[in-house]
Amino acid sequence: MGKRILSGMRPTGSLHIGHLSVIQNWVRLQDEYNCFFTIVDWHALTTGYQDKLDMKNLIREIAVDWLSVGLDPVKSAIFVQSHVKEHAELHLLFSMFTPLSWLERVPTYKDQINQLAEDGKDLHTYGFLGYPLLQAADILLYKADAVPVGEDQIPHIELCREVGRRFNHLYGKLFPEPQALIGKIPLLPGVDGRKMSKSYNNAISLTASPEEINTRVKQMITDPQRIRKDDPGHPEVCIVHQFHKIYSPDVAGIEEECRQGKIGCVACKRYLAEVIENVLAPFRERRRLWEDRVDEVLEEGAAKARQAASETMREVRGLIGV
Amino acid sequence: MGKRILSGMRPTGSLHIGHLSVIQNWVRLQDEYNCFFTIVDWHALTTGYQDKLDMKNLIREIAVDWLSVGLDPVKSAIFVQSHVKEHAELHLLFSMFTPLSWLERVPTYKDQINQLAEDGKDLHTYGFLGYPLLQAADILLYKADAVPVGEDQIPHIELCREVGRRFNHLYGKLFPEPQALIGKIPLLPGVDGRKMSKSYNNAISLTASPEEINTRVKQMITDPQRIRKDDPGHPEVCIVHQFHKIYSPDVAGIEEECRQGKIGCVACKRYLAEVIENVLAPFRERRRLWEDRVDEVLEEGAAKARQAASETMREVRGLIGV
Ligand code: SF4
Ligand code: SF4
Repeated sequence: MGKRILSGMRPTGSLHIGHLSVIQNWVRLQDEYNCFFTIVDWHALTTGYQDKLDMKNLIREIAVDWLSVGLDPVKSAIFVQSHVKEHAELHLLFSMFTPLSWLERVPTYKDQINQLAEDGKDLHTYGFLGYPLLQAADILLYKADAVPVGEDQIPHIELCREVGRRFNHLYGKLFPEPQALIGKIPLLPGVDGRKMSKSYNNAISLTASPEEINTRVKQMITDPQRIRKDDPGHPEVCIVHQFHKIYSPDVAGIEEECRQGKIGCVACKRYLAEVIENVLAPFRERRRLWEDRVDEVLEEGAAKARQAASETMREVRGLIGV
Repeated sequence: MGKRILSGMRPTGSLHIGHLSVIQNWVRLQDEYNCFFTIVDWHALTTGYQDKLDMKNLIREIAVDWLSVGLDPVKSAIFVQSHVKEHAELHLLFSMFTPLSWLERVPTYKDQINQLAEDGKDLHTYGFLGYPLLQAADILLYKADAVPVGEDQIPHIELCREVGRRFNHLYGKLFPEPQALIGKIPLLPGVDGRKMSKSYNNAISLTASPEEINTRVKQMITDPQRIRKDDPGHPEVCIVHQFHKIYSPDVAGIEEECRQGKIGCVACKRYLAEVIENVLAPFRERRRLWEDRVDEVLEEGAAKARQAASETMREVRGLIGV
């Protein structure tokens, strides 16, 4: 049995180009690890229980995005969290021996309550307090050895390890201590310079057509000091350049031309739009193939996940004696 | 579909005669209601997570007791809570929209923490806070119309109704508002006058042999003012009399004889032992029949319960959209 990875995303609908590097990282991990990629709908309900979410479609869209970027249902288990009942079971079990204080002291807890209160969400709920415990169950259910996450998630991985250790101490050694795999994920800004987000209307969707890509790239804020085409530019303050740095083969050349005023912003943007189109075009092709098969993929993924999960729960029950 | 009842007990091993009236009440309810009787092993873990419990045997013993008193696996679903994963699922879902304050203000919460702290149990856990929410899931999973409980459980039923109303309000009408059926359950003391409890070693087990019954009845505290056999007795202060009141056909006659000093305590006790033996003997017979079949009964019960539970969860998913 190879080493295992668990990672997940909430079903927020179709993704944007800012998510791409995370998924491309997962695509690479598939060759090294036995991977479990889960769409965490329970977690979406934790913060969105008041919203009328069209969960079925949100799930389908994100799954098709994953597949179109290259997640492979043959190599990995791609599934929806709530399709595997054992997540709820292990979470309930963990709740029995997890001190309230462990959850209350998770650094992000109070911050997030206050932040989401600004959006009119009341998260003084039992479930929101237990959120990181559900994450711990998500991870340990598959005995994951590693979890690719952003830095903000490190306290949650710490808690997960702590919960696993407590189980091992109380009932017998069963769970590994999963490592956080902190990838160097470049942060892409939105076209207006703010955080890229669908709700800010500043994102390039993974499903964007060539026209939509063009429109978005044209909206990108460039060096405000360049008035004429041959003014020397400052790529370091330009959003267009941040995208070139990630996607353009000859970023050094463009930077040079910009600084020397040899390329105009219009041409520079046209070039970027082409580059992005080249990145997204193959996803668009594959997307068509997967759209009809996505329900099937998620069913197969759930079956694969359930097999691993029920194996773990069998061992858990053996140790606890239920 | 008839009206439904849900009730449960923790797997504390074999029961004593103090539990009998509760179960006999259930036996009667079977003819009027569609009953779900569950052995709540998750709840036992909530307070007993530090104990090394031989849960499998504890479950089997209590189930055989239930059956021997007359719970009928043809009429009712008799099952173990953890065998039906939907309990954990619905509990997780309820956690999303249940305010922490609802759980913190359950009247018994702080009391029980302090009380159990005296037994060396640390119950400042996430699961213990969520205990009444798991009960709410237990009840609403079967859309129970009524729940036979003791008075101390009324706040929990209140919370259950509140949780169901909140679900109905957020996602659409689904759950009934279960009523508490407060039975007049006579409280039997232990032979030493304290609360009857296995751990005080003052209980008459439902499995007691005639000799064990005799021993226990002999230990019962009688009227301390009776020195000689023909002293007038005071049955109101006598433990023996409390048992006569419940189980003896001619309690008025015995009381009279005692007050007039016409019966000695030794004879009075011998008579009570016979009466109790007559109560327990048929259970002993039936117990032998069920002992070999109990695992099968619990499997069939779980299948029956799972059918009702998955039907409810299907409706829940439909309303939430997952
Ligand atoms: S030439 Fe390109 S990099 Fe330079 S400021 Fe214009 S858009 Fe930005
Ligand atoms: S005669 Fe019976 S009821 Fe009266 S004091 Fe003795 S044991 Fe109790």
